[in-house]
Amino acid sequence: MTMIRVTCCQLSPAIADVAANVAASTAAVRRAVDGGARVVVLPELATSGYVFADRDEAAATAITTDHDVFSAWSREAARTGAVVIVGFCERAGNDNAGPLYNSAAVIDGTGVRAVYRKTHLWDREKLWFAPGATLPPVVDTDVGRIGVAICYDLEFPELTRHLALAGADLVAVPTNWPLVARPDGEHPPEVVIAMAAARTNRMVIACCDRDGTERGQRWTAGTTIIGVDGWPLTVHRPGGVDGDVTAEVDLAQTRVKR
Amino acid sequence: MTMIRVTCCQLSPAIADVAANVAASTAAVRRAVDGGARVVVLPELATSGYVFADRDEAAATAITTDHDVFSAWSREAARTGAVVIVGFCERAGNDNAGPLYNSAAVIDGTGVRAVYRKTHLWDREKLWFAPGATLPPVVDTDVGRIGVAICYDLEFPELTRHLALAGADLVAVPTNWPLVARPDGEHPPEVVIAMAAARTNRMVIACCDRDGTERGQRWTAGTTIIGVDGWPLTVHRPGGVDGDVTAEVDLAQTRVKR
Repeated sequence: MTMIRVTCCQLSPAIADVAANVAASTAAVRRAVDGGARVVVLPELATSGYVFADRDEAAATAITTDHDVFSAWSREAARTGAVVIVGFCERAGNDNAGPLYNSAAVIDGTGVRAVYRKTHLWDREKLWFAPGATLPPVVDTDVGRIGVAICYDLEFPELTRHLALAGADLVAVPTNWPLVARPDGEHPPEVVIAMAAARTNRMVIACCDRDGTERGQRWTAGTTIIGVDGWPLTVHRPGGVDGDVTAEVDLAQTRVKR
Repeated sequence: MTMIRVTCCQLSPAIADVAANVAASTAAVRRAVDGGARVVVLPELATSGYVFADRDEAAATAITTDHDVFSAWSREAARTGAVVIVGFCERAGNDNAGPLYNSAAVIDGTGVRAVYRKTHLWDREKLWFAPGATLPPVVDTDVGRIGVAICYDLEFPELTRHLALAGADLVAVPTNWPLVARPDGEHPPEVVIAMAAARTNRMVIACCDRDGTERGQRWTAGTTIIGVDGWPLTVHRPGGVDGDVTAEVDLAQTRVKR
C-alpha cells in the first residue's frame, strides 16, 4: 500500500486579476500541503480566470514560468515533498505579441518539472489561445508518475490512453467545466468520461473544477477524485462555496493492469 | 428527425441447449418486431449460454450461419425492414475440430449481412474461443449504419472510436456482464464506459445484457440503451425476470459531431 493524499482546491479565480489569483492559489496550496496532501491540483487558468472579453484581456493576464508564483508554489511543495499541478495563462515570449497558451504546470520542490499546453481547445478558447503542439507529459515525481490533461482534453480517449501507456499513475486534470443539464442522479458528463478513463486504464484521475459564476458562465463545481476502479472517491457538490476535495489513493494499485 | 425504435431482448439463454435458445431467441425477435422495433439486439452467446464446462461443451453448441435459426431471424426482420444483432457460438468449419468463436451476426431481411468474431476475449473464454482477427464491422442497413461490439470489447476505447470513425450511427453490443459490486446509485461499470463512449463519439449504444444466474454466475441484467449525449434512455434493473428494453432514438443526431 502506498497511500497518498490528493487534494483538489476548487477555487473561484477572479477574472483578469492575476495578483488576487496568485495570492488565493498560493494560500490554497499552502492549506492543502498543511493538510497532508502530496498531490495538489488547482483549476484550469487558476491565475487568470476563464471568460476573457477578448485576446487583449487574455494577453494581459499571461505569464511565463519566470513569474514569482511558480517559486511560491514550489516552496510550498518543498516543505513535504508534494507535487502541484495548476493551470495558467501562458505567453510564449517576453511580450504578448506571440501566441498565448492554456497551460498547466507540474511543480515540485525543485521547481517547474513540466509545462503542458492544452491541445484540444474548446469553443471560444480558439479566439485567443494557440493549441499546444505536443502530447501531455508524465512526470516521474517522488510521489508517483503524474500525467496532465486540461479540461476538454479528457474527452479524447486517445489522450488518456496515451497517458496510461506513458505510465501515469495519476492524471491531474485542471478544468473549468461549464454547467450543463444532466438527468437527476447522474454525475456531470465530464465525470462520467473520467470514470470510464480511470477504469479502462486503471489509473487515478483527479479533476479540479472551479466554482462560482463568471461573467454569466455558471461552473459545474464538479471536482472529483476517481480511483482505479472508476468510482468517485469524493465529490464536491455545487454550493457556491470554495472548498478542498481530498481523497486517499493507493497509487501502487495503478501498476496492476490485469 | 429519424426516430427509430430499438429493442434489446434481455433473455436468459439455457446453457448448452441450442434448441431451446433457438426457440426463445426467435420468439423474442418476433415479439420485438411486432412491437415496432427496427433494431433488435440479443445477448452475447444467445444460442448457447456462456458458462461452458469445457471446450467440448462449447463445441457441441457451435453453429455456422448455415443454421436454420439465421433464416428464421431474417424472416422476422424482413416483415418490417428490421435489423437483428445477436451473439452466437460459432464454429469455423463443418466439424468442431477447428477454432470456435464468440461471434455476433448482423441480420436483415436479405440474410446475414456480417459476422463479427469477438477480438477481446475475457477470462476463461480464452480456454475455448479463438480471438477474431479483424476489427468489428459497420453495416450500412435500411435503418442506419450499425456497428457491433461484444461485451469486453466495449472496454477498449480504440474499438468504439474505430466504429465511430467507420461511421456507426448505432453500436449494438450483445453482452453477458457478470454482476460486480458497485457503489449505491451508480450504474454498472460497463454502462459507465458505454455512456462515455456514446458521448465522446456521439453515437447510440444499445447494450443487450442477459438475466438470471448460470452455474453460479449471477448476471448484471444491465441492459441499457444510451443516446448520443451519453445518457441512458432506458435501464432494465435486475429483477430475475426476462424483459425487453425499448427506446426511441434519432439516428440523424449521430451525424452531427460538433
